[in-house]
Amino acid sequence: MPTERSQRLSRAAALRLSLYLRCVAEWPADGDKVSSSRIAEAVGVSDAQVRRDLAALGHLGQRGVGYDARELAAAIRTALGIDRSWRAVLVGVGNLGRALLRYQGFRAQGFQIVGLFDSDPAKVGTEVEGLTVEPAVRLAERAAALRVELGVLTVPGEMAHAAAEALVGAGVRGILNFAPVVLKLPRKVRLVTVDLAIQLEQLAFQVQHGDGANRDDE
Amino acid sequence: MPTERSQRLSRAAALRLSLYLRCVAEWPADGDKVSSSRIAEAVGVSDAQVRRDLAALGHLGQRGVGYDARELAAAIRTALGIDRSWRAVLVGVGNLGRALLRYQGFRAQGFQIVGLFDSDPAKVGTEVEGLTVEPAVRLAERAAALRVELGVLTVPGEMAHAAAEALVGAGVRGILNFAPVVLKLPRKVRLVTVDLAIQLEQLAFQVQHGDGANRDDE
Repeated sequence: MPTERSQRLSRAAALRLSLYLRCVAEWPADGDKVSSSRIAEAVGVSDAQVRRDLAALGHLGQRGVGYDARELAAAIRTALGIDRSWRAVLVGVGNLGRALLRYQGFRAQGFQIVGLFDSDPAKVGTEVEGLTVEPAVRLAERAAALRVELGVLTVPGEMAHAAAEALVGAGVRGILNFAPVVLKLPRKVRLVTVDLAIQLEQLAFQVQHGDGANRDDE
Repeated sequence: MPTERSQRLSRAAALRLSLYLRCVAEWPADGDKVSSSRIAEAVGVSDAQVRRDLAALGHLGQRGVGYDARELAAAIRTALGIDRSWRAVLVGVGNLGRALLRYQGFRAQGFQIVGLFDSDPAKVGTEVEGLTVEPAVRLAERAAALRVELGVLTVPGEMAHAAAEALVGAGVRGILNFAPVVLKLPRKVRLVTVDLAIQLEQLAFQVQHGDGANRDDE
């Protein structure tokens, strides 16, 4: 149940919280308190922005003393909805799919890949990172048994629409799409599309504009 | 040479421009003009935000008529600094590196991977997507001949610091880092770190909060 407070969180604020969490999670367990200015510096936003965002999470820090890193990390996880684990299936066991399966970050943040699907008969039945690849056509019937909530789509662009439809049919509530296509999904299914070229564009922009590129501190 | 106008672009605005560009680039060549509300809907920001961002690029649209898609795309590319090609090397030819090499989006946006490097002797000398993998220790001496501006880092976390140092030594001006580590670089070298778990966190946040999650329309 989202609280009234967390419902007010904008997507931009949610993204900043994810970035703060990275900074705070690396804080040594026996370390001092974390200051907002330290977080601001690591993430590249203004000190005032960090204080505003964290104030919205409740009474966490003390003026001039800073935040307890573990308490702050827990509060951010709760606000983002990652204070529990999420079960996901991955569709498309190519290079990117395999890279994501080996990616430690997913498990560390509570995301569990519990099923692998591919439409290539040569891949079906093979084992990857401890899971057996199943035929994509079986996605819908397997979803209930796997208790799937999220889908990760790492298929080529021309197969993305069919694979997304299969995931919707399987009842997932959200899709993380790596295919370079615009997917149209029913309103109740959330979509985050990762466009890797955008990241490279942002780097080019920063290189081009050097120190003149203003920091994102609203 | 950045113009005075483009220097004022914040990182958040640059990211929105990248997203607008995706929407506009898919517009049919013989199509009608693009309206700000159409872009706003596709990207998930407010109509007012789109109009503000595009107004900052100069005199592009006419009230009530919309924007010429090709003219708008060209203006966005210029503002972002991707109206030219960028030469990059990739360090770490594992699953993720291979996936990125096959990723059509990089070339489409003007990014050329011109060299591959890896420290694994079993990979050195092999050919991947038309390029021969070279030993990572040769990065610095090869950089000038390859005329490298950017580096893409797809090595495991424990090798990221050494690989980043090699890229800095090779004179790159920006690094796109996929390793789940915080890199400290000289100020003159720009860094964009892609944390794939963050994307999944944002999806979980949107699923958790349903339609209550406010759109990022500042």
